[in-house]
Order: sequence, then structure tokens, then C-alpha cells
Amino acid sequence: MSLLVTGSIGIDTVKTPYGISENCLGGSAIYFSMAASFFSPVRLIGVIGADCPFDLAKVFTDRDVDLTGLEIRNNSKTFRWKGSYYSTMNEAITDEVKLNVLAEAPPTVPAEYKDSKFVFLANTAPVLQNQLLEQMESPVFVAADTMNCWIHGHRDDLESLLKKIDCLIINEDEARMLAASSNLIRAGEKILEMGPGVVIIKKGESGSMMCETGGERFILPSYPAAEVKDPTGAGDSFAGALMGYLASRRGGSKTDFGSLKTAIVYGTVAASFAIAEFSLQGLTSISKADIEGRFKTLQKLTQF
Amino acid sequence: MSLLVTGSIGIDTVKTPYGISENCLGGSAIYFSMAASFFSPVRLIGVIGADCPFDLAKVFTDRDVDLTGLEIRNNSKTFRWKGSYYSTMNEAITDEVKLNVLAEAPPTVPAEYKDSKFVFLANTAPVLQNQLLEQMESPVFVAADTMNCWIHGHRDDLESLLKKIDCLIINEDEARMLAASSNLIRAGEKILEMGPGVVIIKKGESGSMMCETGGERFILPSYPAAEVKDPTGAGDSFAGALMGYLASRRGGSKTDFGSLKTAIVYGTVAASFAIAEFSLQGLTSISKADIEGRFKTLQKLTQF
Repeated sequence: MSLLVTGSIGIDTVKTPYGISENCLGGSAIYFSMAASFFSPVRLIGVIGADCPFDLAKVFTDRDVDLTGLEIRNNSKTFRWKGSYYSTMNEAITDEVKLNVLAEAPPTVPAEYKDSKFVFLANTAPVLQNQLLEQMESPVFVAADTMNCWIHGHRDDLESLLKKIDCLIINEDEARMLAASSNLIRAGEKILEMGPGVVIIKKGESGSMMCETGGERFILPSYPAAEVKDPTGAGDSFAGALMGYLASRRGGSKTDFGSLKTAIVYGTVAASFAIAEFSLQGLTSISKADIEGRFKTLQKLTQF
Repeated sequence: MSLLVTGSIGIDTVKTPYGISENCLGGSAIYFSMAASFFSPVRLIGVIGADCPFDLAKVFTDRDVDLTGLEIRNNSKTFRWKGSYYSTMNEAITDEVKLNVLAEAPPTVPAEYKDSKFVFLANTAPVLQNQLLEQMESPVFVAADTMNCWIHGHRDDLESLLKKIDCLIINEDEARMLAASSNLIRAGEKILEMGPGVVIIKKGESGSMMCETGGERFILPSYPAAEVKDPTGAGDSFAGALMGYLASRRGGSKTDFGSLKTAIVYGTVAASFAIAEFSLQGLTSISKADIEGRFKTLQKLTQF
């Protein structure tokens, strides 16, 4: 079934203990689309300026990523982010951010995208996430991400969004903040009460956990990656493979718990490849068979 | 098969966001024995002063814990520890420590303990761990714990110990320190090269991982505990149930990887009970059936 993503497209400069990657392609919609495209066609919505040095059609060559929703604004500049990771690389320190075109009006949803069934609203102001979601005719499964500044400063918009989505995919610190609970199990349960039927909490190197309103729970460690060169895009790659897998199932209108578990395993595997190299290289250098291989390895590593 | 533990017996005062527990029974040998006794008879070696207000025979009533190796020194004082846990309770802050009897000569191994087959050397100076181990006649499986001050200040003794033991059970920060590697997978592999056939790395709320020289790996999340009142003793309870299970198997002279995996699951479950209440209450208030119940729950939560 059709899968749509709205999110950022950016020019990133990332420094880690393994080196520096200057002016490379980044952004949530890019990582998401790259990971999702192993499983399902993707419809991308995003906006860039005339200065963007990347030909996205070329970036997604041989992948089924529809760029009808890509808007290029000739008088605007592309979003730029500079960040650094230190020691255990668990957290990005933002050195510089230029919102540029992301501070302007958001892109609109093309008419041919409005029937999308699976929708991922990457992290941005919840008022925009709400506006984008309202343009969808009959989505089957909507997931969203958010972050600390929206939890603190735009709580009403976020609470309104949470009532309309099926799944929140969120970092552990942000889950604690949103739920005002230091215990993650409690935090997950409190967020379920805010609206979404499923909450997936990402814990970085420590894996992820999922809870849903029926009382089912799932916990999965991260893939034990010996190579971590650049954690940028891990969360969006996770969400991309997860949503791509859900959208790929035959007649998959129902997101049963078993499928959600499998989707989280694929998300975890995609994230493990994304962080192994700088920028998108970890995802562009692999095949679907590599993903299936690590799926089986993760199964072997965790089952008893 | 026979299981022996040598470790501390202490009088603890612990402060957490849930309250304070003053002058309660603690120490690695106590938590270990309590958790191990659900699975196997335990032989305890430890030393206390005349001031110790606890009757250990009463503490272990109805549990098969042999106290022949308990030494009471009339002119000495019992080990005392005061610590606090804050917010996420991932780390204990030591407020006060009085080594007292632990700074004196270590206890000796009673003649009737020397044939012990499974041995756990709880955290102490590696020179003492070496001396205790030398008194064993033909141990089958020896596991040890250690900590930062021995890694930094007593490296030679520790390296000598690592060549003689089968399994090191260690915290993640200490694993990184010992191996001089920020990546935990690499750290585990480097520690294997130092001697032990099995390395188990405890990651607190994030679970644990195990690696062994044959190349097998296992990763397990922690039990998702909604109640965490006092994390003291979590690691020793983990080791206790783990070693207790291994020692309990019929004719279990071989510690195959499947058994080690099951042992880690039991260790994880025992730790989840230990941290639910102050001091030993989390372990003394449950039955073997409670442990089996959480074993099955953890299976359901993690299998896909």
C-alpha cells in the first residue's frame, strides 16, 4: 500500500571521532525514504532551495521514490545542519543550524498523494504535522516523531496531533519528558493515554520498546554494531524500514502486533546499517539481502 | 553441583527517590546467595564483626545456604556502606564507606568447601580473588566480578586472575575501561582475549550481552520493571541466579551456550525482583513460581 513521508531535506556537516563529512545530503525525509525503499514505494514531500547541490532523482536511482512532492524554491536556501558526536556517540551536539526554507510555509500535499494509506510525519512543528495530516483523505496508519522543543513549547498542538495518529515513534528522553515520568514503562503507558494506539520508544544503543493499548509489549535490543561511524539518521532509518515493511504487506490494512514486531526488527537492522558509515553511505551500499541477513542474525542473537 | 560464593557482607544505608533504608543487611555475598538459593544449595564465605546485628542463619531460614564459611571476628567491625540514587537511579553515589573488617586478612576457605565446582568471586581486590581461587581443588566453572579501582590500580593482579577464570561478569563502563574501547562489542572481544571463555556485560536498565570465544553472542534487554525502589544488589542478584541455575543442572559439568543463555534470563529476572523493594525484601518476598512467571513474561516480550 502507498507510503508517504513528509520531513526535512538538508545539507549536513557531521563530525565524529571517525572523521568529518562536509556538506553531505541529510534530513529526515531522505533517511526515511532510503530505508523504506527497500520494502515499499515511497512518496516524498519536502522542500529545498535553489542552492541544493544534490540531484535527488539521481540519489534515488533504481529506488521507487516518487519525487512529485519535492518542491524547489528558487529564492530560498536549503536547510543546513552542523553537528558533532563525541566518545560513545549517544548524542548529537548541534554546532550550527540554519532553518532557511524550513522556516517558510510548508510544502503542500500533491493531489496524487492524498490517497496515501501509510503516512509518516517526521519531526517538525506539530501545527504543521496537523496541517499535513488534514490533507490526507483516508490514511490507514499514521506515525509521527517529535522532539523536546515541541513538547515544551507547543504542547497543545502536540496533544491535538497525538489524538489523530496511530503511532508515536519517540526517543527515550523525549518520552520521559512528554509523560513527566522517569520510568520508561510508565512513560509509554501515559503516552498511550494521550491518544496513539501504539508507542515506540527508541533507546539508541539500548534498543527499543513498544507498547499498545491492548496491553501487548515488545522489547528489542539494538543490533550489536561493531562499526559506528556516524549516528545521524538512525532514528529516521528505523522509522523508514518500519513503515516500509508495514506498507509492503499484501492487503496489509491491519497493523497487528506480530507485524509491528517484525517491523521494529527491520527498523533496528536498517538503523544499524545507517550508522556504520557517514551520511547515506551505510544505506546506499547494501542490498535487501544484507537486511535479511542481519534480521536473521538479530533473531539468533536474541532468541532463547 | 556445589556452588560457592565469596564476597562482602555489609550494613547498608541507602537513599533513593522512594525513601531511605537505614542499617539494613547488604553485601555482594548476601544478594548473591539469596538469588542463587532459588536454584541450588550455596556455600557462603564472608567475614563480619561482632557488631553485626543480623542473624544470618535466620536470614537464610528455609534456604539451603551453608554458613560454615562465615567468620565472625570479635575485635572487628562489619563493613558499612552509605549510598544514594538520584532521578533515573542508574548509578549509586557513595556517601560513606567504612571497610572495617574487609580491610583485614580475608577469610579462609573451609576444608569442606574446597571441592566446590561452581565458584563466584564477587568484587574485591584481585589479589584476594586469586588467593581464594588457589584454595579450590578442581572447580568446573569460575566466574568473577571486578570494578574500576582494580582495573586502574591493580591491573597485573587482575590480568593474572582473568587467565584463570571461565567467566567475567562486569558492568558496561568497567568493560569499556578494561578493554580501552568505547564500543561494547569490541570491548567484549578484547576481554575474551585476556583469558575468560565467556564475558557477560551488564548494562543496567539496558540489559546485558554475552560473548564467548567460539564466536557465539547473546543480547537480552532488562526486564521492564515498573517498580524500581532500590537498585542495590541488582548485579549480585543477577550473578546469583545465573550461577545458581548453572550449578543446578543435572550432571551439569558443561556450561554450553544454551544453558548460559537461560542462566542470563534467570539472572535478569532475579535482578528485576531485587530492585523492586529496599534491601533484600524484593528477593525474600517472592517464590520460585514468581521467578518462573517473569521468565515466561520476558520470553513473550522479546521473542519474534
